[in-house]
Amino acid sequence: MNHVSRIRALRKQISQSKMDAVLITHLPDVRYLCGFTGSNASLAVTAKSAAMFTDGRYTTQAKEETQGARVVIAKKSALREACAWLEEAGVASVFFDPEQTTVSVLDLMRGAVSRAKRRGFFHPLQKPIVLDLRMVKDADELLQMEKAALMGCNLFTAVLPHIQAGVAESEIAADLEFFARSLGAEGMSFETIVASGKRSALPHGRATSAKVPRNGFVTLDFGVILNGYCSDMTRTVFVGKPGRQELFAYDAVLEAQEAAVAAVSPGATCGEVDEAARSVLRRAGLAKYFTHSTGHGVGIEIHESPRVAAEQSQILAPGMVITIEPGIYIEGKFGIRIEDMVAVTKSGGKILTPAPKAMIQL
Amino acid sequence: MNHVSRIRALRKQISQSKMDAVLITHLPDVRYLCGFTGSNASLAVTAKSAAMFTDGRYTTQAKEETQGARVVIAKKSALREACAWLEEAGVASVFFDPEQTTVSVLDLMRGAVSRAKRRGFFHPLQKPIVLDLRMVKDADELLQMEKAALMGCNLFTAVLPHIQAGVAESEIAADLEFFARSLGAEGMSFETIVASGKRSALPHGRATSAKVPRNGFVTLDFGVILNGYCSDMTRTVFVGKPGRQELFAYDAVLEAQEAAVAAVSPGATCGEVDEAARSVLRRAGLAKYFTHSTGHGVGIEIHESPRVAAEQSQILAPGMVITIEPGIYIEGKFGIRIEDMVAVTKSGGKILTPAPKAMIQL
Repeated sequence: MNHVSRIRALRKQISQSKMDAVLITHLPDVRYLCGFTGSNASLAVTAKSAAMFTDGRYTTQAKEETQGARVVIAKKSALREACAWLEEAGVASVFFDPEQTTVSVLDLMRGAVSRAKRRGFFHPLQKPIVLDLRMVKDADELLQMEKAALMGCNLFTAVLPHIQAGVAESEIAADLEFFARSLGAEGMSFETIVASGKRSALPHGRATSAKVPRNGFVTLDFGVILNGYCSDMTRTVFVGKPGRQELFAYDAVLEAQEAAVAAVSPGATCGEVDEAARSVLRRAGLAKYFTHSTGHGVGIEIHESPRVAAEQSQILAPGMVITIEPGIYIEGKFGIRIEDMVAVTKSGGKILTPAPKAMIQL
Repeated sequence: MNHVSRIRALRKQISQSKMDAVLITHLPDVRYLCGFTGSNASLAVTAKSAAMFTDGRYTTQAKEETQGARVVIAKKSALREACAWLEEAGVASVFFDPEQTTVSVLDLMRGAVSRAKRRGFFHPLQKPIVLDLRMVKDADELLQMEKAALMGCNLFTAVLPHIQAGVAESEIAADLEFFARSLGAEGMSFETIVASGKRSALPHGRATSAKVPRNGFVTLDFGVILNGYCSDMTRTVFVGKPGRQELFAYDAVLEAQEAAVAAVSPGATCGEVDEAARSVLRRAGLAKYFTHSTGHGVGIEIHESPRVAAEQSQILAPGMVITIEPGIYIEGKFGIRIEDMVAVTKSGGKILTPAPKAMIQL
């Protein structure tokens, strides 16, 4: 991964703006910018230089991983030493991410500089510059994400024979996660969702000891982490024989999902992609059961920018990777969700999760 | 779980203090207090009443799970509606947890109340009252944690035959996590650490594709989530035949670990427990390789209060559950860590993870 060019892009933004320096404490941002993956890090970046502060647990690892920034092993607090370093560097103001900085951490930061600097030294960033950088993936990242997404598809294929009436949802999750590890995943990108029968009407039904019924939907929503990048996909299959209502609803969700994928193109807004899915479900009389947004960006974190939701004005650009995941949830009956990861390319949306979407009956 | 009594305990603290109301947004705190496990929740608590705000995805689940608080399904933002509800309730001030509230969220909270209230309505809690409540586990919680910890021991026993020279660390992690799921765990409580050979000198060496060497330590640090409670344990085994230096170091770490467990008793401080481990390693000339603190509280989250570290003045009390996990890390050579979960009882520390600690040679 070319971390040096990422820090350089941030430095360029710093020197082109009225900012003197940026202090980054959100770990996925630190990983993105300089490659360090430890659990304690503060990255201080000025127009001229960058220093990454961590603690003694990471002496070896920090040296191995970090690119484009000096590594400093803090004696006590990495955060405090980063603040002191910025003060000594003579910058007039330091910008931080208010979405990722708690009220307590801001207090600690203020306490780490001299009394004269406590007011007016630290300022909230007016826009999420690192998230915005991360939103557009570079070629290295797209390659990793494609691999992670394909692994997800392989897991889905591998776990299908295990989905049978009487099997506990948690057993299906166990099989899926074992395959993931066996194929080299570092872990799952979020708690695996296996929601069967009436539980499929829970949009976030994590796998429980509930058993797959003889007749009903099973929703699988899962992702792996591979080389630090997340995948995310959902498929809903039917065990037994679906009735007319189930078939109608499945077709509507699938049509909505495909319409949203087709709406992905450079220049389209996220709101337009959301509306493409929502309008299909509206015509089918099912819009009131579609209780969440259509999707989200994905990358080092499972939820990143942009939000693919109603009225979102963010314009899609090549390199962005989003999920398209409309669903309907009818309380006490059933739920259906179908989700792909889609990369925005010059010529439109490219599905990274090419597993079958036509209804699978088991 | 008796959530009603937990909210009652918080209400009692509110009415005994100068606080009018507390707004809780940290999800593990919400779960602890009212039982709701969804991913979006704001819990508003006054001396007289409590209301839990979430969104339409959780209509069914919130009704099923929530105890001791009214459920409100917010039309737009759960957080904003919680703030507006508190303003309408006529309270003069609302306290929030500065450790769990970002600068942006505080801005959102201020923006949700009338202009006259923006200044002086929201105040940071001076002490972490919910974390302090959570620090002392009730009987229901201790039972869950004992089950989770025992499952951890069973996993260790089950995975031992899989630890062999030439096997990838990630395969060992896969086996361990598969057993965990098969036994009914909801997931792992953190990324499984399998660090073999020279990699055992990385305190946080997550499982990689590196293969277990013919001769060397393998550190396994892992935990499960069972009914919402985390377990945490570490064992270090030796593949092959250890040399004198390895045997000496292992004995020292084990002695340090046992000394710290023996130091656990109601009335002892966390600093004293840390010193019990550290002084053994100091006498063995190994203290400089012990680069982290001795342990931490554990419960709904993998890291909770108290911190078991040098000079921590927190006094141990019955019901607290902490880890005791001294370790040494010699760069380029090897590392060793041994960790138990220990419950503080009236008569001293009770080990919840009774897996063997004498050196296992494989």
